[in-house]
Amino acid sequence: MSLRDDSWTARPHYARWLASTNNVTQQFLAIGGIPDIISLAGGLPAAELYPVEEIRQASDRALTRWGSQALEYGPVEGFLALRLAIAERMSVATGGKFESGNVLITSGAAQGLDLIGKLFLDRGDLAVVQHPTYLGALDAWRPREPAYEKLTWDLDAPGFENRLKAAKFVYAVPNYSNPTGVLVPEAARLRLLRQVAGAGTWLVEDDPYLPLQLDGKAGRSMLSMAASRKAYDGPVIYLGTLSKSIVPGLRVGWIIAPADLVQALALAKQSSDLSSSMLTHVIALALLDSGFEAGHVEKTVAAYRERRDALMQAAARHLSQWFDWDTPPGGMFAWLNAKSPGGRALIDTDRLYHYALAEKVAFVPSSVFDFEGRLNSAMRLNFTRSSPEAIGEGIARLRLAVERYLAETNERAPSRTASWDDR
Amino acid sequence: MSLRDDSWTARPHYARWLASTNNVTQQFLAIGGIPDIISLAGGLPAAELYPVEEIRQASDRALTRWGSQALEYGPVEGFLALRLAIAERMSVATGGKFESGNVLITSGAAQGLDLIGKLFLDRGDLAVVQHPTYLGALDAWRPREPAYEKLTWDLDAPGFENRLKAAKFVYAVPNYSNPTGVLVPEAARLRLLRQVAGAGTWLVEDDPYLPLQLDGKAGRSMLSMAASRKAYDGPVIYLGTLSKSIVPGLRVGWIIAPADLVQALALAKQSSDLSSSMLTHVIALALLDSGFEAGHVEKTVAAYRERRDALMQAAARHLSQWFDWDTPPGGMFAWLNAKSPGGRALIDTDRLYHYALAEKVAFVPSSVFDFEGRLNSAMRLNFTRSSPEAIGEGIARLRLAVERYLAETNERAPSRTASWDDR
Repeated sequence: MSLRDDSWTARPHYARWLASTNNVTQQFLAIGGIPDIISLAGGLPAAELYPVEEIRQASDRALTRWGSQALEYGPVEGFLALRLAIAERMSVATGGKFESGNVLITSGAAQGLDLIGKLFLDRGDLAVVQHPTYLGALDAWRPREPAYEKLTWDLDAPGFENRLKAAKFVYAVPNYSNPTGVLVPEAARLRLLRQVAGAGTWLVEDDPYLPLQLDGKAGRSMLSMAASRKAYDGPVIYLGTLSKSIVPGLRVGWIIAPADLVQALALAKQSSDLSSSMLTHVIALALLDSGFEAGHVEKTVAAYRERRDALMQAAARHLSQWFDWDTPPGGMFAWLNAKSPGGRALIDTDRLYHYALAEKVAFVPSSVFDFEGRLNSAMRLNFTRSSPEAIGEGIARLRLAVERYLAETNERAPSRTASWDDR
Repeated sequence: MSLRDDSWTARPHYARWLASTNNVTQQFLAIGGIPDIISLAGGLPAAELYPVEEIRQASDRALTRWGSQALEYGPVEGFLALRLAIAERMSVATGGKFESGNVLITSGAAQGLDLIGKLFLDRGDLAVVQHPTYLGALDAWRPREPAYEKLTWDLDAPGFENRLKAAKFVYAVPNYSNPTGVLVPEAARLRLLRQVAGAGTWLVEDDPYLPLQLDGKAGRSMLSMAASRKAYDGPVIYLGTLSKSIVPGLRVGWIIAPADLVQALALAKQSSDLSSSMLTHVIALALLDSGFEAGHVEKTVAAYRERRDALMQAAARHLSQWFDWDTPPGGMFAWLNAKSPGGRALIDTDRLYHYALAEKVAFVPSSVFDFEGRLNSAMRLNFTRSSPEAIGEGIARLRLAVERYLAETNERAPSRTASWDDR
C-alpha cells in the first residue's frame, strides 16, 4: 500500500541483548532437517519412545474428570492438584516438607530459568554459573544482561566465597550436567550448599536429567540437603521437569522454592504468559496418577544405555587418538576433550564443526557453553536421539572430519596465517 | 538443617521492577474465591460455555493424527501446520498475503506482549500506549522498565508525531478496547497507521476481542490496511488469540509480523520457554479444521449480548445518578465514568472499591489502567463471567456501596482531612 512509499528507512533498533545473542539452538534444530545428516548435536529425547497412546488416554480421562476447569486461565502458579502432586513427590524424594505453596508449575524447566532471571537480574548483576554452562540458561538470562563468574567446583579457589557473596544466585546442574555429563560428588554438593548459605545467596539446582540414571544412582540433591520437616526457607531453588521422564511437548516443569519466593516468581510468570495451559497440567496429573511414569523411565533408560554404550564404543574405535573423555553415568550427553600435548589443544572444535557438517554429522562445539565463547577444545555429543547404528555411523563420519581437518590444518601450519574464516 | 544456624540475615534483593509491580491480577483472581462475592472485576469468559466435549474429541483426533510429533520440543515458532492455518486465516481476513513465516504462535496473546517488550525495550525506552491501557500489557513490559506516553486518539495533539518518532512502538486495542470497550473508528485507525508509518516506528495492534461483536461489526484492522499482496513488511505487529473464540486454557495466540521480525521474536521466545506445548497446537489445529469455531462464537456472542444488556439495564436503574457510560458494542467490558460536576469527579473509584468489597461485589478501579496510577474516577465492569441475574444483583450491591461511600465522604467532608487510608 501507499504507506510503503513514505520516507521511513530504518525502524527502531532492537533491545541491546539481541546484539549479543545467537541462534545456535535454532541452527541445531534446523540441522535436523538436512537430508542424510546424523545429528548428535541437539538435546532431544528418542521420539519413537514417546508414549502417544498413554497420553491420548490421559487427555481423555483428564478432560472427563476436570471439564471446564482444565480450560480456564490459571491459576498463575499452576493447577492446584498438580502442585500438590509435585509437592508430595518432592517431599518423598527429599525427606523435606513441601506444600503446594512451595511449587510453581512452569512451561518446562526452561521457563523456570527465565523467571529466575527476571526475578533477580538487573543489568550487570552477578550470577555464578557452573562452567561450562547449559546454553539454555545463558540464553534465558541474556535479556537481563547479567555478569558471570565461573563455578568450576574448585570450591577452595581464592576469592570464590567473595564471588558468592556478590552473586544474586549460583547455578549448578549436579546430576549428569549439560553439557559435560558429569555427576558431581555429594561431598562437593554439600560443601557448595554450605558456602552458598554462608554467603547469603541463592543456589539454583537444575535437575532435568535425574530420571536418566544409566549406571548407578544419581547424587543426593542439594534441595534434600537443605530441606527439613519445617517450612522450607531455602537457599536452594530447585528445577524439575517431566520433559525427560515423559515427553517434552507437555512443557510441564516446576520450581521448588520458599513460599514467598514462589509468590514473587508467580508475579514474573504472570507478566510472561498470564498462566500455562491448564489442559497440559491436568494431562500431566493424569499421567502421574496412573503410575505409568516409572515403567516408562525404565524402558527409556534401557534404550539410552544401549545408545550411550554405542557412542562410547565407536568413540574408542575412531576418536581415541585425538580426544579424551569419561563415560557419562547418566543423562543425554558425552563430552569429548581434544588432547592437548604440550598444553595446546590438537583440535579447534569451532573449526572442526564445519568439517563435520561437510561429512554430514553434527555435534555442539564447546564454545557455545562458555559465556565468554573461548572454550574451543571440546565437543558435546548427544546419544539419546539417534539409533545405536546411526550413532556408530556418525562417529565414523566424525573421524573423517577430524582427519580432513588435521590434514588441511597441517598443510597450512607453516604459513601461520590460517584464520577462523580461512578453511 | 544446620544451615539455618548460619549468620545470613538477608538474601539478595530482587530486580528493580519488582519494587514497582503489583499483584492486582492475582488479587482479582483471589477475589473470585471469596464466598458469595459477585465479581465483575476479572476478564474471564463464561466457563459454562467452554466446549469441553469438542476439545476432548479434538485432542483424541490430534494425537491419533500427529502422534509423537505432537509431543516434541518446538519448533520455537510453533507447529508448522498451525502456522499455515493461521496465515491462511489472516490472509482471508485482511486480503493480505501472509505466509507461515509471518506467524509466531505464542502462549496466549499475553506472551506476545512479553516477547514484544523483550525484543524492543531497554530501560527508559519509550512506548506510546493507548490510554487507559490494558493492565496485562503494562505488567508484561514492566520488567523491561520502559517509559510511557499516552495515545488518546487525539491524533492532532501538539507533539504527538514527535513522540511517535521517539517511540520503539505504539500500542493500541482498537476493537472493544480493554478497559474501555471502545470501538475506534476506522478513519482514526488509518490516520494513526499513516502517522506511525511516517514516523518509522512499529504499531502493535492487540485484537483479542475481535470475535466478540455484540452489535454490528468490528472495525477493519490496521493490519489489513497495511497489508498488500506483496510480502508483508509492517509496520503493524498484530496479536490474535483463540482465548475468546474457543477457550483461554489452550494458551494459543499468535503474532503476525514481517518475517525477519518473527525470527527475532522467535529468539526471544526461545529464551522464554524453548517452545510452547505442541500438544496444544495440534489440538487447536484440530478445532480449527473442524469448523466448530464459528458456531461456538455465535453461541458465545448471544450469551454475552444478553449479559451486556443486563448490565446496562441494571446500571441505568441503579447508577445513572453518579456515572456516565456508553454501551460497549462488543468485547467483555463496560467503562463507567464518575460524573464530574464542576470538573471534579463525584467518586474516587479507588476508595469506592473498598466499599464495594464490603457489599460483596468487585470491579476494577481505573487507576490500574493508568501507568501513572492517577486515573481514579472510573471503573471497569466485566459482563461475560456472571449470569444476567448475578450481574443485576452485583450492580444493586454497587449502588449500596456508592451510597455508603458518599454518606461517609459527606460526613467527613467538612474536616477536609480524609485521606486514602482513612475510610
